[in-house]
Amino acid sequence: MEERNLRQILQDVQQGTINLDDAVEQLKTLPYEEVEGFARLDHHRSIRTGFPEVVLGQGKTVEQIDRIVEKLAQRSDRVLVTRILPEAAEIVQAHHPEMVYHPAARALVLDRTSPENRPEGVMVLTAGTADIPVAEEAALTAELMGNRVQRIFDVGVAGLHRLLDRLPDVRKARVVVVVAGMDGALPSVVGGLVSAPVIAVPTSVGYGASFGGLAALLTMLNSCATGVAVVNIDNGFGAGYLAGLINLQAVNNKSL
Amino acid sequence: MEERNLRQILQDVQQGTINLDDAVEQLKTLPYEEVEGFARLDHHRSIRTGFPEVVLGQGKTVEQIDRIVEKLAQRSDRVLVTRILPEAAEIVQAHHPEMVYHPAARALVLDRTSPENRPEGVMVLTAGTADIPVAEEAALTAELMGNRVQRIFDVGVAGLHRLLDRLPDVRKARVVVVVAGMDGALPSVVGGLVSAPVIAVPTSVGYGASFGGLAALLTMLNSCATGVAVVNIDNGFGAGYLAGLINLQAVNNKSL
Amino acid sequence: MEERNLRQILQDVQQGTINLDDAVEQLKTLPYEEVEGFARLDHHRSIRTGFPEVVLGQGKTVEQIDRIVEKLAQRSDRVLVTRILPEAAEIVQAHHPEMVYHPAARALVLDRTSPENRPEGVMVLTAGTADIPVAEEAALTAELMGNRVQRIFDVGVAGLHRLLDRLPDVRKARVVVVVAGMDGALPSVVGGLVSAPVIAVPTSVGYGASFGGLAALLTMLNSCATGVAVVNIDNGFGAGYLAGLINLQAVNNKSL
Amino acid sequence: MEERNLRQILQDVQQGTINLDDAVEQLKTLPYEEVEGFARLDHHRSIRTGFPEVVLGQGKTVEQIDRIVEKLAQRSDRVLVTRILPEAAEIVQAHHPEMVYHPAARALVLDRTSPENRPEGVMVLTAGTADIPVAEEAALTAELMGNRVQRIFDVGVAGLHRLLDRLPDVRKARVVVVVAGMDGALPSVVGGLVSAPVIAVPTSVGYGASFGGLAALLTMLNSCATGVAVVNIDNGFGAGYLAGLINLQAVNNKSL
Amino acid sequence: MEERNLRQILQDVQQGTINLDDAVEQLKTLPYEEVEGFARLDHHRSIRTGFPEVVLGQGKTVEQIDRIVEKLAQRSDRVLVTRILPEAAEIVQAHHPEMVYHPAARALVLDRTSPENRPEGVMVLTAGTADIPVAEEAALTAELMGNRVQRIFDVGVAGLHRLLDRLPDVRKARVVVVVAGMDGALPSVVGGLVSAPVIAVPTSVGYGASFGGLAALLTMLNSCATGVAVVNIDNGFGAGYLAGLINLQAVNNKSL
Amino acid sequence: MEERNLRQILQDVQQGTINLDDAVEQLKTLPYEEVEGFARLDHHRSIRTGFPEVVLGQGKTVEQIDRIVEKLAQRSDRVLVTRILPEAAEIVQAHHPEMVYHPAARALVLDRTSPENRPEGVMVLTAGTADIPVAEEAALTAELMGNRVQRIFDVGVAGLHRLLDRLPDVRKARVVVVVAGMDGALPSVVGGLVSAPVIAVPTSVGYGASFGGLAALLTMLNSCATGVAVVNIDNGFGAGYLAGLINLQAVNNKSL
Amino acid sequence: MEERNLRQILQDVQQGTINLDDAVEQLKTLPYEEVEGFARLDHHRSIRTGFPEVVLGQGKTVEQIDRIVEKLAQRSDRVLVTRILPEAAEIVQAHHPEMVYHPAARALVLDRTSPENRPEGVMVLTAGTADIPVAEEAALTAELMGNRVQRIFDVGVAGLHRLLDRLPDVRKARVVVVVAGMDGALPSVVGGLVSAPVIAVPTSVGYGASFGGLAALLTMLNSCATGVAVVNIDNGFGAGYLAGLINLQAVNNKSL
Amino acid sequence: MEERNLRQILQDVQQGTINLDDAVEQLKTLPYEEVEGFARLDHHRSIRTGFPEVVLGQGKTVEQIDRIVEKLAQRSDRVLVTRILPEAAEIVQAHHPEMVYHPAARALVLDRTSPENRPEGVMVLTAGTADIPVAEEAALTAELMGNRVQRIFDVGVAGLHRLLDRLPDVRKARVVVVVAGMDGALPSVVGGLVSAPVIAVPTSVGYGASFGGLAALLTMLNSCATGVAVVNIDNGFGAGYLAGLINLQAVNNKSL
Repeated sequence: MEERNLRQILQDVQQGTINLDDAVEQLKTLPYEEVEGFARLDHHRSIRTGFPEVVLGQGKTVEQIDRIVEKLAQRSDRVLVTRILPEAAEIVQAHHPEMVYHPAARALVLDRTSPENRPEGVMVLTAGTADIPVAEEAALTAELMGNRVQRIFDVGVAGLHRLLDRLPDVRKARVVVVVAGMDGALPSVVGGLVSAPVIAVPTSVGYGASFGGLAALLTMLNSCATGVAVVNIDNGFGAGYLAGLINLQAVNNKSL
Repeated sequence: MEERNLRQILQDVQQGTINLDDAVEQLKTLPYEEVEGFARLDHHRSIRTGFPEVVLGQGKTVEQIDRIVEKLAQRSDRVLVTRILPEAAEIVQAHHPEMVYHPAARALVLDRTSPENRPEGVMVLTAGTADIPVAEEAALTAELMGNRVQRIFDVGVAGLHRLLDRLPDVRKARVVVVVAGMDGALPSVVGGLVSAPVIAVPTSVGYGASFGGLAALLTMLNSCATGVAVVNIDNGFGAGYLAGLINLQAVNNKSL
Repeated sequence: MEERNLRQILQDVQQGTINLDDAVEQLKTLPYEEVEGFARLDHHRSIRTGFPEVVLGQGKTVEQIDRIVEKLAQRSDRVLVTRILPEAAEIVQAHHPEMVYHPAARALVLDRTSPENRPEGVMVLTAGTADIPVAEEAALTAELMGNRVQRIFDVGVAGLHRLLDRLPDVRKARVVVVVAGMDGALPSVVGGLVSAPVIAVPTSVGYGASFGGLAALLTMLNSCATGVAVVNIDNGFGAGYLAGLINLQAVNNKSL
Repeated sequence: MEERNLRQILQDVQQGTINLDDAVEQLKTLPYEEVEGFARLDHHRSIRTGFPEVVLGQGKTVEQIDRIVEKLAQRSDRVLVTRILPEAAEIVQAHHPEMVYHPAARALVLDRTSPENRPEGVMVLTAGTADIPVAEEAALTAELMGNRVQRIFDVGVAGLHRLLDRLPDVRKARVVVVVAGMDGALPSVVGGLVSAPVIAVPTSVGYGASFGGLAALLTMLNSCATGVAVVNIDNGFGAGYLAGLINLQAVNNKSL
Repeated sequence: MEERNLRQILQDVQQGTINLDDAVEQLKTLPYEEVEGFARLDHHRSIRTGFPEVVLGQGKTVEQIDRIVEKLAQRSDRVLVTRILPEAAEIVQAHHPEMVYHPAARALVLDRTSPENRPEGVMVLTAGTADIPVAEEAALTAELMGNRVQRIFDVGVAGLHRLLDRLPDVRKARVVVVVAGMDGALPSVVGGLVSAPVIAVPTSVGYGASFGGLAALLTMLNSCATGVAVVNIDNGFGAGYLAGLINLQAVNNKSL
Repeated sequence: MEERNLRQILQDVQQGTINLDDAVEQLKTLPYEEVEGFARLDHHRSIRTGFPEVVLGQGKTVEQIDRIVEKLAQRSDRVLVTRILPEAAEIVQAHHPEMVYHPAARALVLDRTSPENRPEGVMVLTAGTADIPVAEEAALTAELMGNRVQRIFDVGVAGLHRLLDRLPDVRKARVVVVVAGMDGALPSVVGGLVSAPVIAVPTSVGYGASFGGLAALLTMLNSCATGVAVVNIDNGFGAGYLAGLINLQAVNNKSL
Repeated sequence: MEERNLRQILQDVQQGTINLDDAVEQLKTLPYEEVEGFARLDHHRSIRTGFPEVVLGQGKTVEQIDRIVEKLAQRSDRVLVTRILPEAAEIVQAHHPEMVYHPAARALVLDRTSPENRPEGVMVLTAGTADIPVAEEAALTAELMGNRVQRIFDVGVAGLHRLLDRLPDVRKARVVVVVAGMDGALPSVVGGLVSAPVIAVPTSVGYGASFGGLAALLTMLNSCATGVAVVNIDNGFGAGYLAGLINLQAVNNKSL
Repeated sequence: MEERNLRQILQDVQQGTINLDDAVEQLKTLPYEEVEGFARLDHHRSIRTGFPEVVLGQGKTVEQIDRIVEKLAQRSDRVLVTRILPEAAEIVQAHHPEMVYHPAARALVLDRTSPENRPEGVMVLTAGTADIPVAEEAALTAELMGNRVQRIFDVGVAGLHRLLDRLPDVRKARVVVVVAGMDGALPSVVGGLVSAPVIAVPTSVGYGASFGGLAALLTMLNSCATGVAVVNIDNGFGAGYLAGLINLQAVNNKSL
């Protein structure tokens, strides 16, 4: 809450246009909503960022997810449940038939907005075929935020010409999400070839000394290329969200 | 090289307006320059990104740095040498008196451009006083790219009101660099309070179970806040570069 | 055994008010009880601390748990079995119908005492919904020790206003248990806002670089806030026990 | 800031007993002080907790420490600078002759209060001789907070009788700080022998597979004893602070 | 093969008492036996050490175990299969009805020798009930080698009196195997109380920061007590073998 | 693409023997093939190396594997699918009856070439029986590349004579693949006994502090023997490929 | 203290042959001695084990070491200070001219006993030349305990014949200490060749992925050979002590 | 020693052409030489491999290095001392003026052979300038073995065109050593572009999450490219040796 709002409320109090209890309430209460003790929905975030709080399905019971979606769907046109298993999604869908389940991304999506007129600018690349689920989570997220997303899959560095051939397209993007497991080398190569920000997503794809994605994560953190930042292993959502944000900010020419 | 350039060169060959050797040369050569066998300067990057290849001082001899700066200073108005010790900087400065050394950031800077009219939008925060050197490296980098940078230091989460008091300023930024060692918790809090992208920089500040910055790095990678990405431990340059890029892209409303 | 007890026994021997064998026995035997070779019950602890040895269910067979509970229930009004699966709990309950199973906390509880008149002072917070099971284990433990426990769930730092709104309540506590997975940042923020001791509990909630709770653990160990100590990952019992102890000590104004 | 304060200010505004600008200022400003851009002093914490913000010397320049001490010494009777080297302490002492340097603890202390009438209740143990510096940091901290501290050093588990002999004293404490490197086993043994809370401090004392204190840290986190919590490796300050807090709370019989 | 054997064979060749092919064979062949390409049985070890090669069940198919046991049972009176699941053991037992399966230790044992007259001297302790399976593997191994083994279980350091009460027995042993998970502190305490060698066995019992036994392993490696050595996590067999060896050597007063 | 090819195409353009569009196409297109968006087949590699891109089965759906094999089998006589489970292999075999599944190696192989006249020179050793699956993957790979492979299994260093007895055979090889889990010591010993390159393959065979093969991996990387290089844990394919390459190069006396 | 001693004291009390205060003292006091608050000397251990408490020099000030040696030298004929730097040793030697400093082992030794008639049986091997300091610490320790020690250095597995040539000697030992850094493979090979217990000592010799001895440590813990146990990295003292104990026990045919 | 040699010696004994003691000696002695107890020189290796045992300077005293070089220089024309500091090298050179010190590679070399007529085929690449020392160690090693080595430095993946431009040269090599720190991505890219074996060398160049080369090491072990194997961090010698071996084997068309 910025100073001018504060001053306005105080002026209202001073001028008697608002009573004391209401003023206390306005200053005290923040716009969130409690769901039966186990969750607090952050409508505030939605107001501020133009995007609702996403529900991380992992670690929640189906009942909990269901109740949270219930609340969110009443106030928002766009809801995203990530890391939700098919069986759980099916149960939630029974109450919300308008939601769509994307099995590869393990994502359940409510989107009442129109996909038309979304600006281009977000590119999602994968090194291999097995990285696609994480990439799809990223792409779905950015799309739901209002971006048009281009996907190019299986262009890992061990067959460099596959990437180089698509370079003109990649270079057009305002932000590039690069998803890779195993050696995690693709973001370094892409980062050296484009001038846009690169959001690198290590995946747990691999075996042995990949240590569940640790190898790819370290590779990306140590990238020699400039303009590369990294999110958590398998965190397609985080990468898609950040990429969507960067693209929309550039499109909308955000003023200070 | 995109298809239309290729087509143009081939048309020139077809029409005889360029001879064969020149065409081969154009297709074969890439615009970099070799410095006595130990380094290859990437002017290509400068042309493409509007920013020269930065010199990572660490791991290079003073002589090597000196020779590389020599070459770069001939072609570029802006050169940044990072992680260079005062003694080495002094030697290089003897040949390049116009360069300025920033001891806190361990950075040597050549900047023949005017600092006026640089757009605002980049905010750099630190959790503690000891994080300032890394933050300064980030700020210097973004400034050298052509941004105006606002710094707010020592606003760690253990004294939350210090951050909340500056929140209006922080919320105005187009991109926020958050530098923190020890528990590395600041980016999560900032990420929940702003809607701009947050570039989190873990530092090696701390002791014991901070394990040289590993604790802060893991905290940031696992941030519950959205819109947060992470760079390497102590990588102020990388964060400043990415933040500068995001800000400039938004300012310039980059078209595809 | 303190010196005065020793002296008393010796005086009894000297004065012939106790025979030799009994004296030897008193000095030699410690008040524990063996359960068929696989466990030794520590009634001594119960006498000393006013709380029975808790049974860690994990790693024990159902038969072993059953036999241990059998012995404990004969001598104590309060028994806590932690980390016990529903199937195992059901078998034990068949023999001890007065026991109650708490599925979220995976805890089986015998409590013949009255919950009335328990002093307030213990607060249990969680960062997210998925941290609730560990928090419940902590709360149940402190309650069984004779504390009244207040729970506030899902107040993680990425939506800071959720916590700030409940701050007056949190500040009233004599000790605060803070349960958080993923980035584990909540204890640092709470530690900076309250003056009571904070017991931080990292959870294994998260994925990727959370490495089973390691990230949250390191964050908490490196907390910049004062008055914070940490227990093992997912160790709700340990945190609840320590918090209960601190609260009861303050309530009872323990003399030296 | 709690609701009743808020309500009071608003009533003052309503009743015209405070003008608008002052009200804004009171609501906006938080009681900290900025030191030339590199540090923010948290007098608020001092007011709330009765103890000033401690200065972590490590990572700060002597000049920075000196300026911060300057500010703190004007408002507080008790200042603690931790992890400060003798040379730096000497420079600061030149401006603050009343400060005392404790070389073993690497601590610089200003204490204008009287050490008399401080309540007993804090016990500090070490496993070995090399753990003493960390233990002294803990003891000094608790003393500066207003506790009387008893020290028993070199009672590691490999010579158990050394501990058992002092057990009556140890059992009298309201809280026990246990400092141990190498195998870090002492807190488990102490935790099983006393009913008071145990704050375990792993130290970096050891070699080889102690991995800078990691071994002792893990031992303590996995302690089988109840009532044990852990702070960072070598964090004597943190342990002393928490122990002091617990003891004072019990002494003062803190009401809710 | 020692020099005198070599010299003897050569003398036999010189004197013609052995023909050339036989000599080559004697020098070339080592007494092992191949089992259909997938295993090589080391009867040599049996001859040298008086104990047959043990079969590590883990990682082998039931068929492979069965064939190996087949071969070993023809030449040896004592065969030990470790880490074999009940289903696999059942199949092997069908062909070798004289073998006994010990479910706690997951061990399948053939022992045609008499358990009488085995010398005492090996003591096996556990910290908790959940460590018993590993301890049983150790005890069975030492028994099969010809030792009498005494077991004392559940005497962890958090209830020190349980151990102290059994100290006279423990001190009689020639070698003590100490099995502990979680904090792994028991070997340090035992090592300080006895003068016999202590073989410490970390177990994977625990959760969270026990990291599958790593915490206990590090504790034991860093033990402050003298006379302690460590084997792999859960390696009851290795500890039992070494303890058995040490005891038999002392009993037999091995000459050089 | 080397300069002379480039020059040839340009000459063709100059001389009009090729039209512009075809030239653009030749320069632009690289010989790979896209499979419905999820994979890009690298026939280029096959042309260059004489061996087709291998399909890593892990992380791909059965449908994806099936489609990729479909494409590859049309252009290549030799296809290798690694890390494919029996159920998946069965489905693919239904469409490609000529493929053979090797259960131990989890490999599905298409080989229309003749196994005759393949040169010897590749030796594959294992330390234990449980390492055989990885060794078989290595051997199959080298065979499919056109090598004859000799296997010697279960010759670990704890029974050194088993290896020494087969030393003459091992010394004849041009390259030795050494597969070992647990302590991973075999490559060091073999590397000291042979003069050929040794490709060391750590396996995840073991338990406890083997940490999924990490112990064996580190052992091999730190080998004191010369001529040893290491591949990923359980990466039989990688080792077999490299060994096959080295052997074929030596056989074919590759000219520069 | 065993039961019969306890009974004897009580009988003395009963019969009045000892007064009450003396009995209390005997039961209460344990035979250690405090050195000015920073150390507790364990003469008890000396009485029990026939060997004095060794002084770990690392982490102690020269003054502390000096005072401890002062006390120990008054009561014991044999004192060992380990990990003491030459400068510190020189200072201590000034007060104790009879002490001898062994620079390779960094050990300061007082030995007033005769080295004659010490039994053979302890063998110390090293893999390389750089491992000798740790091996010397082990050998010195065992010698000071009263053993004769044979040393064979630089017999690492990469040149196996160096070990095999000395095998007859190695096989004669009652216990073998094997010291190795880098790949740490020597204990596995030795363990397979001898039937005596093997005490493996990993050293920090190496670079890169040796991670300060971690690689060698893990190798040894995962040894496939039987009869091998491991001590901490660079812990020559611990290995020498254990080896000396095992040998003396076998020599003395310890009765139960 | 192979069977035919054994048979020959036995025939000589049988026929009396060799006396018994000489035969024993031949069978017993292996051709190494002991240097005053601290090292065993392996001339056997030299005979077998055509290359002398290299001296690892690290961890040895100057005196030890000097004595070892003394012995080696008498029997071999080529000696390589690695990881030797300039000061130590100077002392050794005083006794061996014909030796040459290479400061970048920290290598001291004796080479009395002619560098002419050495076959080409070994290529050494580095990702950055700071990787050159390790690359030089590799190149020197391969050269000393009798190879001609081509070096191309500073062609890291962040500026891909630098590598692509030199691709024709790189593709001509029989074996490629790729040296890279930080993200360690270069070997994956090179491995995908060439058909020759790639020996990847991670370096400790980097900071933060490079963890002393661990990041680059893991990247390389997880390389998606085929034909890549890895050596220890900074192990230029090991890579150069293996590359030299592979090249010479291919040149010499080694027969079985």
